[in-house]
Amino acid sequence: MTEPRPYRLTVAYDGTDFHGWQRQPGLRTVQGELERAIRDVLDVEELAVNGAGRTDAGVHARGQVASFLASTRLPGKAIGALANKRMPRDVRIVEACDAPAGFHARHSARARRYQYRMLDRPDVMFGRFAWHPARRYDAQGMVRSAQALAGTHDCSSFESQGSSIVNPVCRIDFARWTRWELGWMFEVQADHFLYHMVRNVVGTAIEVSRDADPAASMARILAARSRATGGSTVAPWGLSLEAVLFEGEEVPA
Amino acid sequence: MTEPRPYRLTVAYDGTDFHGWQRQPGLRTVQGELERAIRDVLDVEELAVNGAGRTDAGVHARGQVASFLASTRLPGKAIGALANKRMPRDVRIVEACDAPAGFHARHSARARRYQYRMLDRPDVMFGRFAWHPARRYDAQGMVRSAQALAGTHDCSSFESQGSSIVNPVCRIDFARWTRWELGWMFEVQADHFLYHMVRNVVGTAIEVSRDADPAASMARILAARSRATGGSTVAPWGLSLEAVLFEGEEVPA
Repeated sequence: MTEPRPYRLTVAYDGTDFHGWQRQPGLRTVQGELERAIRDVLDVEELAVNGAGRTDAGVHARGQVASFLASTRLPGKAIGALANKRMPRDVRIVEACDAPAGFHARHSARARRYQYRMLDRPDVMFGRFAWHPARRYDAQGMVRSAQALAGTHDCSSFESQGSSIVNPVCRIDFARWTRWELGWMFEVQADHFLYHMVRNVVGTAIEVSRDADPAASMARILAARSRATGGSTVAPWGLSLEAVLFEGEEVPA
Repeated sequence: MTEPRPYRLTVAYDGTDFHGWQRQPGLRTVQGELERAIRDVLDVEELAVNGAGRTDAGVHARGQVASFLASTRLPGKAIGALANKRMPRDVRIVEACDAPAGFHARHSARARRYQYRMLDRPDVMFGRFAWHPARRYDAQGMVRSAQALAGTHDCSSFESQGSSIVNPVCRIDFARWTRWELGWMFEVQADHFLYHMVRNVVGTAIEVSRDADPAASMARILAARSRATGGSTVAPWGLSLEAVLFEGEEVPA
């Protein structure tokens, strides 16, 4: 029996048919599927897979990072390949490797990057991964509202109730709206995110977009540090965890 | 009882969980779902919905056009709205209207437009609507191969067996490769298409892409008028019927 060593996985999933990341008895979750598959590969009874971001029900991921400890001679890459064969098609380990001692996906992460996709009009195909807002908004106002976001702020105005996150002060590396093929997309990177934070920022951007100075409105809401001032929580299925960054890794703007 | 009049529907669907367009006993098909919903709305026993393109299992649509005849005072728009409430979320009537006398989606159509999306790398999310080829190809060669396609040709080299289409001569209005967010996309418009034609053209484009002169290779395969010379049939889920055009409608390149 060798000493347990850490492994690192990059995980992608279509969140539509999952009850989110976090293991829940009797429910289909991403963490649950991964743990079941890896336990099966390693032939162990107990195994905990930790994710860098606990995505909610319906939220997708292209670059979730997870880690686990195991006593095995199998290299990470082989564990990933074998686990993929034991998992349904809507969750895939896209990279697997041995990690340095002490590595823990959640504690070691230095930044997370999310995308939120919107649609200009409803779309049966890409509507699975993007949300069509019913209310009108001003796209250029939405773009401008993001100017108030970069920097280190208390983000309590964007934190939904029910969170277990202690520190409401987030370092937002960048926040911007760009076009994708079928609509607008919000991209944001921060050291950590509060509960529903991206979805609340998007809801707020839509609501302030028709104000005279959307960036000033966004700054005022941020400064209020009160959820009551922020906008509504938009649908989960537009959201995707795109990347998690660790010490020494390039942090591209 | 009024004289039956034609109605026109524009239909979008995520083809993943359908056994294609065409009604088949005991199987879930798009035509079957539409007919069931509209029969229910109109409270009739018999109703046939005709589609302009009979998409295969797994193929998607954003702009399929369908028609049916009915004796009712309900305007087309109301039928569409009521039918949508009776259908599952993966098929939507995006437009519904009264059609001119004699209108028939398949016989009246003057052109169909398809998209085929590829992925640069596997993607669990958009992999539902785009295909990742296992074999290597040269993207610029693929782009060049399309130069041979526009015009009126006997397209037998791109027709899979099992077809009921009589006329192998197609007028291809345009055929081009462009980039989308995650890879290359083939767009093609023609008066009509042979069985599996788009998927066979894409397979051929990949196969000739590394030739010295991919456009000449494509022209040679076309001229051979023999399926044996064409490339393999690529996966259905990259394909989408984007639009159907009728007499007097603009045919944008």
